[in-house]
Amino acid sequence: MIPTNEEFKRTIDVVSPHVHRTPVLSSNLINEMVGAELFFKCENFQKGGAYKLRGATNAARSLSQERLNSGLVTHSSGNFAQAVAITARDLNIPAYIVMPENSPVVKKNAVIGYGAQVTSCISTLQAREETTEGIIKNTGATFLHPSNDIDVILGQGTVAHELLEDCPDLESIVSPVGGGGVIAGACLALNYHNSQADIIGAEPFGADDAYHSLRTGKIQDNDTVDTIADGLRTKLGDKNFPIIQKHVKEIIRIEDVEIIEAMRLVWERMKIVIEPSSATTLAAVIREKKKFAGKKVGLIITGGNVDLSKLPF
Amino acid sequence: MIPTNEEFKRTIDVVSPHVHRTPVLSSNLINEMVGAELFFKCENFQKGGAYKLRGATNAARSLSQERLNSGLVTHSSGNFAQAVAITARDLNIPAYIVMPENSPVVKKNAVIGYGAQVTSCISTLQAREETTEGIIKNTGATFLHPSNDIDVILGQGTVAHELLEDCPDLESIVSPVGGGGVIAGACLALNYHNSQADIIGAEPFGADDAYHSLRTGKIQDNDTVDTIADGLRTKLGDKNFPIIQKHVKEIIRIEDVEIIEAMRLVWERMKIVIEPSSATTLAAVIREKKKFAGKKVGLIITGGNVDLSKLPF
Repeated sequence: MIPTNEEFKRTIDVVSPHVHRTPVLSSNLINEMVGAELFFKCENFQKGGAYKLRGATNAARSLSQERLNSGLVTHSSGNFAQAVAITARDLNIPAYIVMPENSPVVKKNAVIGYGAQVTSCISTLQAREETTEGIIKNTGATFLHPSNDIDVILGQGTVAHELLEDCPDLESIVSPVGGGGVIAGACLALNYHNSQADIIGAEPFGADDAYHSLRTGKIQDNDTVDTIADGLRTKLGDKNFPIIQKHVKEIIRIEDVEIIEAMRLVWERMKIVIEPSSATTLAAVIREKKKFAGKKVGLIITGGNVDLSKLPF
Repeated sequence: MIPTNEEFKRTIDVVSPHVHRTPVLSSNLINEMVGAELFFKCENFQKGGAYKLRGATNAARSLSQERLNSGLVTHSSGNFAQAVAITARDLNIPAYIVMPENSPVVKKNAVIGYGAQVTSCISTLQAREETTEGIIKNTGATFLHPSNDIDVILGQGTVAHELLEDCPDLESIVSPVGGGGVIAGACLALNYHNSQADIIGAEPFGADDAYHSLRTGKIQDNDTVDTIADGLRTKLGDKNFPIIQKHVKEIIRIEDVEIIEAMRLVWERMKIVIEPSSATTLAAVIREKKKFAGKKVGLIITGGNVDLSKLPF
């Protein structure tokens, strides 16, 4: 079930021509503060403002032209919606995006701006799935899952792959954990690079399903979800959990107030806009300073899509 | 009075080892919006969060060691204060910074963080100058002016120099106009590169002294100052005005609402934090779209120091 290094290599070749090679940034000041050497892999500069394009690109470009002609469909209120819209535009095929009616207007407009067809529905998972089913029946479009799909996971793995190419001697990589796609992808990248770096998840206390899933050995639900990190409110899936279980050393949980503080620090000192989900990584390093003391640590900055009218500071 | 290319060359050699080579960024989306090819020279990523370090470095390193030993002094509530503090720290000499008592705490703390000695005074130019005079008498420190000093102007010119090295075929460069240091420096850089690019100033209507100075051929005061672009509330000086007069083609004035819109666009689409003064450049291009249509335009993004608790959106 776990993809091979050959599959990972093929993914790199498929994805790289269609995404930005995002920079790896550092801040002396933040390094001094935390007592470690941090390398921020900045997917906030990716097309669509998040790493999600990588997975969507790989999954879509693994389909036959015949299937592609019927289009792509997904349900998402967030970054994956934009990723599928951009991918479909690049491939010159239709994209159907199901978005909860309470999605931010700015995100809806971005998706429409990339030429996708948006269908609104009420904000329950059931409504989203039923609306998606209806579109599949009517159009024959192929459904792309944002995180629980091997081709998507492989694509997201190119984030950590590029990070390891730029910084081969990392001792840890810290990745946010939401649906599990990007951290599972990072595991594959580590394997591909034969890197001995630890891979550590960062997860809000308010949506700590991955923490409990790893502890119990079984995918757990979030009973309630309460976190500012809107990208991390989802749970793991059966495709990425085995990979995470095999490779992830530990999940560090952080409070929302720590996430907000880390996010503000990055905005103020590094002058880059990152979203709360991304800031979990720095928050985790700050919370567990001793663990990272003196180490070279890669942080996966997953995206920079925030509503500037609703900032937490 | 106008520095030679030899002096400019020497400045590049003095300044470059002590500053970041900041990146030049682009945004396809913003290019499509404005119908021109824009190149953002990102001094928001400079040490201290602004280009000011370049001028302070050049001015300080043009002094004898004996004079340096007595330290540097300036009065500033903003980016130049940090620049002088960093320069003094790098040279291992004292820095005395006079700051109006209403300066933002975050800026004061940053200056203190770099090891400078801060003296507070009331918020009038007279009080600032008198306090500074007192420090000079007591310490023998050398006063550095943030914009009306040939060595400072030369140093600030390295911003446009790097931009022209990276993008030699620019047809226009748009620079904010405040005290006149960075735009005068850009004039020197153009001359040094033998570039045919137009140099255009961007200035808020609420502090349009440079616009009136160029029209009348005489340095004009701002009767009143009312703009969000806090870095541009100052007026030109007798050292930089002749350079500006000789080379600057035109000053485009913009409203604060246009500045805020441009600033928001850059934050949202480019995911970088820039301050209002920097956003004047994009605001000017958007306001005068036709003038720039189809052209390669360099924008000097002067800094990224903003108080995140007081954003205009």
